[in-house]
Amino acid sequence: MFSYSHTVQYYETDKMGVTHHSNYIRFMEEARIAFMQSIGWSYDKMESMEIISPVVNVSCSYKKPSTFADIININTEVKELSRLKLTMAYTMTVGDTLVCTAESVHCFVSKSGRPINIQKEYPDFYQAVCDASR
Amino acid sequence: MFSYSHTVQYYETDKMGVTHHSNYIRFMEEARIAFMQSIGWSYDKMESMEIISPVVNVSCSYKKPSTFADIININTEVKELSRLKLTMAYTMTVGDTLVCTAESVHCFVSKSGRPINIQKEYPDFYQAVCDASR
Amino acid sequence: MFSYSHTVQYYETDKMGVTHHSNYIRFMEEARIAFMQSIGWSYDKMESMEIISPVVNVSCSYKKPSTFADIININTEVKELSRLKLTMAYTMTVGDTLVCTAESVHCFVSKSGRPINIQKEYPDFYQAVCDASR
Amino acid sequence: MFSYSHTVQYYETDKMGVTHHSNYIRFMEEARIAFMQSIGWSYDKMESMEIISPVVNVSCSYKKPSTFADIININTEVKELSRLKLTMAYTMTVGDTLVCTAESVHCFVSKSGRPINIQKEYPDFYQAVCDASR
Repeated sequence: MFSYSHTVQYYETDKMGVTHHSNYIRFMEEARIAFMQSIGWSYDKMESMEIISPVVNVSCSYKKPSTFADIININTEVKELSRLKLTMAYTMTVGDTLVCTAESVHCFVSKSGRPINIQKEYPDFYQAVCDASR
Repeated sequence: MFSYSHTVQYYETDKMGVTHHSNYIRFMEEARIAFMQSIGWSYDKMESMEIISPVVNVSCSYKKPSTFADIININTEVKELSRLKLTMAYTMTVGDTLVCTAESVHCFVSKSGRPINIQKEYPDFYQAVCDASR
Repeated sequence: MFSYSHTVQYYETDKMGVTHHSNYIRFMEEARIAFMQSIGWSYDKMESMEIISPVVNVSCSYKKPSTFADIININTEVKELSRLKLTMAYTMTVGDTLVCTAESVHCFVSKSGRPINIQKEYPDFYQAVCDASR
Repeated sequence: MFSYSHTVQYYETDKMGVTHHSNYIRFMEEARIAFMQSIGWSYDKMESMEIISPVVNVSCSYKKPSTFADIININTEVKELSRLKLTMAYTMTVGDTLVCTAESVHCFVSKSGRPINIQKEYPDFYQAVCDASR
């Protein structure tokens, strides 16, 4: 499984002394971009092929807080892939402690905003994500 | 219904030219704190009574992008209240355009982290939220 | 003098319990954009005329901390204007307490990145800023 | 010289397509904390010894923009150290391109907010920073 790590910065904490909950949504994005790069589809490559994958939905369940200097390990995987949508799942841990679980759903659109059927129009990309999801 | 507005700042946009999706989670927090204040339970008051309501879960469905200088109207309401948990629902619009719908779930804990049964321990607070949810 | 106010959000605090120092740089941007709008040069208008004013330099002297829910009053003024550069000065207070003083320096460039002599090329804009600086 | 690197995240860009200028102030903090750790004075250690070093002043001169996925190299050094104040200097580059130069000034206070003369009260810390500045 693909794993990405993010070290919590001081400016990511809040006055409760913990990582502000909104930042985990950002960590998901970091992990997702690194995951895509790991399967040969860097952001640059997708951009040059004019595939944009906006976030349609995010959800995050907070289990335990993390704080400054914690190294968050983010296991990142494809949960579901269809012709039109990609669901990514994330499990974040600090050491042995489960910090949160999260999901994001993405569609695919062209630069003009037209929905893309990636299985048809970008079969290589579709296949790479498929392979990564097994 | 309670409504809160947030004007999108330049630093809240990203290189796609739109409001970065993580920021909506922050707008939810702004709206929620303003809502609580509107029913007589400001953050200060809750803090002085040592009621902490951590975020247990957030979810957000993105419908249309917003961008710099947009005024986002955030309709904010209690969706569900139990002895232990509060679910808030948010509907964000820019003019007539639905931008996103979102939910957050909160529990209640004391400063020491002990779960609080708010119906029993803080009946006034419980009642105020109940009244607001009708 | 032009005044803009920013209410400190929970997510703008850090684990010291105060507004994270980086956020004041963002408040300066908010105040500057509002100031420009107040003299008839909204961001939209400048963008439509293809005037871009990148930040060349910022400096900020922190006097006293601010924290969640504080209303920061930002007095904003033109400190210096030349054909090529604009220096803005900011004084931030919470009630009677001086929180920080800051400055930002801006140049003017076209969309292609060419430096603009605003006195020559945009005399109306130059005049409006001049008038505001007296 | 101590060097720290920060990879620009997507959420750190703005609608101009570049790293938002406020984020460099955050990168300075990251680099400074890493520098302190490299000379044996991690944030944890300073906190446990109750030395707090608030930011008194920051300044940043922007030379060239950076953008998403750029790896910013931050050369970090002690510019000046007195009994009461520490001035850090930062030079940020992406490859061979100078992105910005910056400085931050810090004082030292106890938990109660009392100014600390670090040369007298924490000679080991003073010496470590002195040694690093040569």
